[in-house]
Amino acid sequence: MILIGIDTALRCTGYGIIEISGKKYSAIDCGVIKNKPKIPLSECLHRLRGGIEEIIKLYRPQIAAIEGGYYFKNAQTAMVLGMARGTVVSILAREKIPIYEYAPRKAKQAVVGNGNATKDQVAHSVSQMLNLDIQQIPKDSTDAIALALCHAFISHSANGIYLKPPI
Amino acid sequence: MILIGIDTALRCTGYGIIEISGKKYSAIDCGVIKNKPKIPLSECLHRLRGGIEEIIKLYRPQIAAIEGGYYFKNAQTAMVLGMARGTVVSILAREKIPIYEYAPRKAKQAVVGNGNATKDQVAHSVSQMLNLDIQQIPKDSTDAIALALCHAFISHSANGIYLKPPI
Repeated sequence: MILIGIDTALRCTGYGIIEISGKKYSAIDCGVIKNKPKIPLSECLHRLRGGIEEIIKLYRPQIAAIEGGYYFKNAQTAMVLGMARGTVVSILAREKIPIYEYAPRKAKQAVVGNGNATKDQVAHSVSQMLNLDIQQIPKDSTDAIALALCHAFISHSANGIYLKPPI
Repeated sequence: MILIGIDTALRCTGYGIIEISGKKYSAIDCGVIKNKPKIPLSECLHRLRGGIEEIIKLYRPQIAAIEGGYYFKNAQTAMVLGMARGTVVSILAREKIPIYEYAPRKAKQAVVGNGNATKDQVAHSVSQMLNLDIQQIPKDSTDAIALALCHAFISHSANGIYLKPPI
């Protein structure tokens, strides 16, 4: 089973691909899709779409886990992030990949045991779980890997009774 | 010159295709892409993407005008609308169609002369400008046609000096 975790943002989207066989998890790839600040909005979305399409083509993930359940104070920020997320979700849906949403707190809780864990703590846990050198993991992809691991844990524990339906 | 106006929403996206030759405007097509309330979010975005792709393939618009400059109180609403807009924008950008954004007020001002015009007033103006029977225009597509007309007017008047760059 190949899982993709995606931590979407307009300027820097992290992704992590993990493989599950039985109770063993291993990392296949992780990285970021970046858009420089000067690139116009439509071009950012175009590049994000292309990047996600390429990753899907390469690794053929069967399930996707994305960040969700945000609480925003600023509607403008929510709109821009929504545009990036919509781009990603519409491509995953086209490829018929079920998409599960996890709040950032939930993903941190799953991999560190603390919903308020720092980025460094998440990176540390993720590297240990997947037997990776922490230096090898791009900084902005650790949350994406955590999302994939979070889904793996929840779907395996208690026969998946805590699994919410895909979006 | 073929223009597409798109009034994006998750459950009901209106579109209008108009042709400009010189100072003459004519309607080519208009309609709506609907998603029933029970359809999951990812499937809605998938259907929206497919619908927009089909319309682009059919009419090959050279310019797009979309709704923008919203002010939301509710960030959750902004997020969902953002997801629908991102889906549309990423497809337009892939087809290298420049996308111009107009606030709803601005589009109403352009076609009715009143930024607070009602839906019926917009429908009335649009039908007169394009010499269409008002009954023939799907209700939820009038704002989309108004967006396309708004862009046409602004880019033609004063040699386009009031035109903002595409997004």
